[in-house]
Amino acid sequence: METIANDKKKVIVKEITNIDEDFAKWYTDIVRKTRLCDYSSVKGCMIIEPYGYAIWENIMRELDNRFKKISVKNCAMPMFIPESLLTKEKEHVEGFSPECAWVTVGGDEVLEERLCVRPTSETLFCDYYKDVIKSYRDLPKLLNQWVSVVRWEKTTRPFLRSREFYWQEGHTAHQSIEEAKDFTIKMLNTYADFIENFLAIPVIKGKKTEKEKFAGALETYTVESIMRDGKALQSATSHNFGDGFAKAFGIKFLDKNNELSYIYQTSWGLSTRIIGAIIMVHGDNEGLKLPPKVAPTQIMIIPIKVKDENNVKKANELYNLLINLGFRVEIDLTDKSPGFKFADSEMRGIPLRIEIGLKDIENEQVVFVRRDNHQKRIIKTINLVESIKYELDDIQKSMFDDAKRFLNSHIDVATNLKELVDKIDKSSGFVRAMHCGEKECEEKLKNDTGITARCIPFDKVLSNNKCAVCGRDAKYEVIFGRAY
Amino acid sequence: METIANDKKKVIVKEITNIDEDFAKWYTDIVRKTRLCDYSSVKGCMIIEPYGYAIWENIMRELDNRFKKISVKNCAMPMFIPESLLTKEKEHVEGFSPECAWVTVGGDEVLEERLCVRPTSETLFCDYYKDVIKSYRDLPKLLNQWVSVVRWEKTTRPFLRSREFYWQEGHTAHQSIEEAKDFTIKMLNTYADFIENFLAIPVIKGKKTEKEKFAGALETYTVESIMRDGKALQSATSHNFGDGFAKAFGIKFLDKNNELSYIYQTSWGLSTRIIGAIIMVHGDNEGLKLPPKVAPTQIMIIPIKVKDENNVKKANELYNLLINLGFRVEIDLTDKSPGFKFADSEMRGIPLRIEIGLKDIENEQVVFVRRDNHQKRIIKTINLVESIKYELDDIQKSMFDDAKRFLNSHIDVATNLKELVDKIDKSSGFVRAMHCGEKECEEKLKNDTGITARCIPFDKVLSNNKCAVCGRDAKYEVIFGRAY
Repeated sequence: METIANDKKKVIVKEITNIDEDFAKWYTDIVRKTRLCDYSSVKGCMIIEPYGYAIWENIMRELDNRFKKISVKNCAMPMFIPESLLTKEKEHVEGFSPECAWVTVGGDEVLEERLCVRPTSETLFCDYYKDVIKSYRDLPKLLNQWVSVVRWEKTTRPFLRSREFYWQEGHTAHQSIEEAKDFTIKMLNTYADFIENFLAIPVIKGKKTEKEKFAGALETYTVESIMRDGKALQSATSHNFGDGFAKAFGIKFLDKNNELSYIYQTSWGLSTRIIGAIIMVHGDNEGLKLPPKVAPTQIMIIPIKVKDENNVKKANELYNLLINLGFRVEIDLTDKSPGFKFADSEMRGIPLRIEIGLKDIENEQVVFVRRDNHQKRIIKTINLVESIKYELDDIQKSMFDDAKRFLNSHIDVATNLKELVDKIDKSSGFVRAMHCGEKECEEKLKNDTGITARCIPFDKVLSNNKCAVCGRDAKYEVIFGRAY
Repeated sequence: METIANDKKKVIVKEITNIDEDFAKWYTDIVRKTRLCDYSSVKGCMIIEPYGYAIWENIMRELDNRFKKISVKNCAMPMFIPESLLTKEKEHVEGFSPECAWVTVGGDEVLEERLCVRPTSETLFCDYYKDVIKSYRDLPKLLNQWVSVVRWEKTTRPFLRSREFYWQEGHTAHQSIEEAKDFTIKMLNTYADFIENFLAIPVIKGKKTEKEKFAGALETYTVESIMRDGKALQSATSHNFGDGFAKAFGIKFLDKNNELSYIYQTSWGLSTRIIGAIIMVHGDNEGLKLPPKVAPTQIMIIPIKVKDENNVKKANELYNLLINLGFRVEIDLTDKSPGFKFADSEMRGIPLRIEIGLKDIENEQVVFVRRDNHQKRIIKTINLVESIKYELDDIQKSMFDDAKRFLNSHIDVATNLKELVDKIDKSSGFVRAMHCGEKECEEKLKNDTGITARCIPFDKVLSNNKCAVCGRDAKYEVIFGRAY
């Protein structure tokens, strides 16, 4: 059996580019061959296929539950923003207008005012909040929406950068700057916990530099993750707007002292980019590797002899048992060879494979094969459910530990520019270094090398006080890297 | 207590227009005062507020579970359709192009080809199916997406008709016309069962006439409901496309005999219009009236003396108990009067109100008040959970029965045009009549009277054979009415 498996596996695996030879092509191969998404006739827009969308559905369900637990409610704003509304906050419009898609014709008429297809919805929420917030009794407002947004990108890649992408965007309104800031951090922590514990992706929490912060924000917080090629992926962001938007839109409320005050706002989002992170943090040369909590299929059952009625019957019994217990299970009853099925299940990243053959039935056992470490175990039927729970938990944990080890071994420190660039490129990872905090210094670094400040990390390890890039006095510690 | 309640209630209720005086204004009052949705700065587009969106979330969850049980999978197509793709199927484009919104500028550039913001996604699914369906092994494809679509309507009303609305659109591909037709009917039945058993809205199942069918469809099936003003609301539709789209798009597969054949397709959808139906089927002069299964809040707990610590404590204990049992519950601890709270809870359509006062605590009881029939019952704490389950089930059932009685008493029969128009207008309802099946006859009726053929019902009751509109030979029985 093993021999067949390995032979057939090679045939399938050959179709996936080796991860060490061409990471970008490996990524595209995985996306396409596991049918996560497809290209469409609309340039730069993707079709999220059922397997990819099932991952997104699991992400939405879990994250939405977490939001609801902290009293966030969902709503739906229009997908269009009139140009006059978009341009009310100066920095915001400057950040987004170069990548807007514009509706100029509706029905058979040219519109009097063109409408932007939302690139993000701060302005729409402001317009709504201005209407519904009158008094401190109306605060806080903790709203969110699950929608797609459009940004007219020039170069696109599935999940990572596309003209239309899916996300949630939360928008809140508060009575004080302190409450807004606390909520910004609360959402950052919500994302960090979700990404680490549900997606098994370790993150670094920090604040964006002035240069990298969101258009219109006072402060932007971020969770950054490292991909297997050493590049960073900004996994979610949380923005504290202060009263900037409130002043631009004139959103005031009567406070407890009966005085008119501006509201304070936040926004925070996580998008389908995170599916790119799941691929690039966990995947390997066999294909996708999904953490059990987010995997659309947690267990693949493969009967070895599909032509044997009893084998199929026993496999089906197992399938029904596990489905009824709430596991997400598939069974492969096609006439393909077991070896092909093993490889296919691995390529699709299904965490646990259960093989059941005639000998297994006789011995009241099944065979477990883990996707993460390829370990094979014979499990007595009597211990089945307990063993599955144990393995799925352990796979989830092991995948996080493995990714955490990779992150830890790919963060270095640097005290000067040469060291900074060399270490990022040679060890393919992040570098901690002190920075002067000047926008121009960061911009020069980016233009010269492509390296960007990922964040000012919450945890600091450096003690020197000279900017590693320009040598001037340093303001704070920064984690630098190349980013998606 | 009762006196206060009624006094305060009047104050609130006064704000809602009487349902018999001005139904349209009554509808808008309910939508706005219960905060289901708000107008936006984008003409004709609505903001679905949290309470309205929570209804939509319950609809999505239940319907999506029902779809998944019959192997339908979710995916996501782009929101844009290139003009050349939209125009591939002739009838389809003629049906939709007058109400398309067009993106003509992306980033800073005028697009080479303008993009329509999807009014529906048949063409996108065809484009995808052409790419992924090669053999009978790839069939059936049973896909769905939950998205918003855009139709540039001239006159709009919250939920009933807006330029952007939310829906699910299912699109399937099959090997044979029989399988496609069976699936079309299966989805119609899925909708009918969902609308009747979850939303407590009785429906009439039928087929659309040639004039009323969907642009590009071979046959359109519909579930029609009657509103309290006697007008019809098309609650969901299911279309059998035959191989029309497949021929226009060239979608072929290798069948079991190794011959190339065109696929057969269906599509089916239910939208946020259904929230309009919930309002107009169940609501009354006190406000909204929600069936327990779809209500965001099933139970409102109102402690009578919020200044009494023990009263609040007991009410909170009750709240926690019911939340933990999985009921959707709110508790009103504000300093407003109990009477105001009673009326507010009724206006928001919450099915069951539980009042708990000092005397109730002493007697180990609570007071139940049902929204549907205003019945008041004293319930011993020991029977609480059982009684809640009973009442919620009974409210759901009673609301359906009541709506069903209304429907049955508002369908009449007619044998000539005068009778048809009179009966529809005098009894404000539907009329069954025979029809010749000619498009021109239907069009004349619509132009002259505003009355349309709602459907050719599955159940037939008439035996005459002359068209009630033009007197020629009849082809089939039709249910006529005025429609939203």
